[in-house]
Amino acid sequence: MPEARQIDVYLLPDLAEPADFSRATAVVIDVLRATTTIVHALAAGATEVIPCLEVEEAFQHHQSLGERSILGGERGGVLIPGFDLGNSPAEYTADRVRGRPVVFTTTNGTRALARCRQADRVLIAAFVNYSAVCRELVGTSRIAIVCAGTDHHVTREDTLLAGAMVDDLGRAGRCTLNDQAEIAADAWRTAVRLLTDRPLGVMLRASRGGRNLVETGQENDIDLAAQFDRFDLVPQLDVTTWRIRPA
Amino acid sequence: MPEARQIDVYLLPDLAEPADFSRATAVVIDVLRATTTIVHALAAGATEVIPCLEVEEAFQHHQSLGERSILGGERGGVLIPGFDLGNSPAEYTADRVRGRPVVFTTTNGTRALARCRQADRVLIAAFVNYSAVCRELVGTSRIAIVCAGTDHHVTREDTLLAGAMVDDLGRAGRCTLNDQAEIAADAWRTAVRLLTDRPLGVMLRASRGGRNLVETGQENDIDLAAQFDRFDLVPQLDVTTWRIRPA
Repeated sequence: MPEARQIDVYLLPDLAEPADFSRATAVVIDVLRATTTIVHALAAGATEVIPCLEVEEAFQHHQSLGERSILGGERGGVLIPGFDLGNSPAEYTADRVRGRPVVFTTTNGTRALARCRQADRVLIAAFVNYSAVCRELVGTSRIAIVCAGTDHHVTREDTLLAGAMVDDLGRAGRCTLNDQAEIAADAWRTAVRLLTDRPLGVMLRASRGGRNLVETGQENDIDLAAQFDRFDLVPQLDVTTWRIRPA
Repeated sequence: MPEARQIDVYLLPDLAEPADFSRATAVVIDVLRATTTIVHALAAGATEVIPCLEVEEAFQHHQSLGERSILGGERGGVLIPGFDLGNSPAEYTADRVRGRPVVFTTTNGTRALARCRQADRVLIAAFVNYSAVCRELVGTSRIAIVCAGTDHHVTREDTLLAGAMVDDLGRAGRCTLNDQAEIAADAWRTAVRLLTDRPLGVMLRASRGGRNLVETGQENDIDLAAQFDRFDLVPQLDVTTWRIRPA
């Protein structure tokens, strides 16, 4: 009998230890909005996305990459002074980003990426590329799914996507799950039953991240984040060069 | 319209800030096994339970309380040398504890209790006193449910009980939930549907805490912890005297 596949979920980056990523493929989730936006940017033809934790670091990268590079990201959900683009997926159109590197800074998403430096591979997932990520993970024996959350708070939208992935990946055969993976999958299964009554976007509006976007007038981003499988693209972080490109 | 009731869940003590308990009733959950055992001890007639974080502290309390007091608790799931009782609910019989104070030390449960010092009230919940706790919370406008987890890991058994409580309390009227409360309630709703196929005890065996007990030959405790509403008793921690007595 083949060894059971191990799938672990961490509802926040803080809940994972560096050793948890040893020999694992990490999947980073920040549905509202970093990972959704990264998928949009690469799908629109950006050559790469360079995630930065600090604004100062982003400016330095921008300077060294030259005029063609685009500065994008947010602090507290809004545009950073001197930046070209915010953190709305809608802004990352082919017009703006095709053929250009994007220097990108968001607090929660970048913190989550940094947490899984020791993984064999780091993939980026959102609802917009859900099935593509699941396909990319076929045959992977050890998977660590990391939810970015918001300012150290667990968020429902990230948990639901993690649960959807556990549910999908678990169908392929025997799996060992940590308790957070069980909880996320159970939460997703309840949400799926509710999805017949109300679309995913309505659910995401009620989450912590969703409420923040409604309050700042960026509600349209929730609908963009709720588009299942809009893209057939899996961004992958190269932890050596710290660049995100299509896998 | 009356103000919506606020119900927050924290899947680990570390995920709650002291301010989260301001003007709130805290409910502490450590299904396997501390809170289950505390309910058993008081139901068997123990006069009070004194929770201690450290073994040394427990010995000091025992000494100051005199011969009649009982020393109970565990480290790594097993009996502490020099202690009268472990952390199995089955050990806390009327024969052993009636009319006596119990000095009790468990790492995770006590850590969770300590986290909610600033709450107006601190109640202790397990599946064995589920409905009694829910009744005690009728009319409470701000509730913070804290799951103890195991060694800083989220555990499914605590999350499911938290979700069951959110589900029950939420039926009474308008509620505002944090994302962890939504996730726990969603997870519970999936579990409830599965409960027709397999009893709660089977589910708890698969959790992190359950597997630990199976490995140490204490499987019987899982069945005891899974007995819904065996007791009509709500333990309450007096944060001034640091004593747990029936509310």
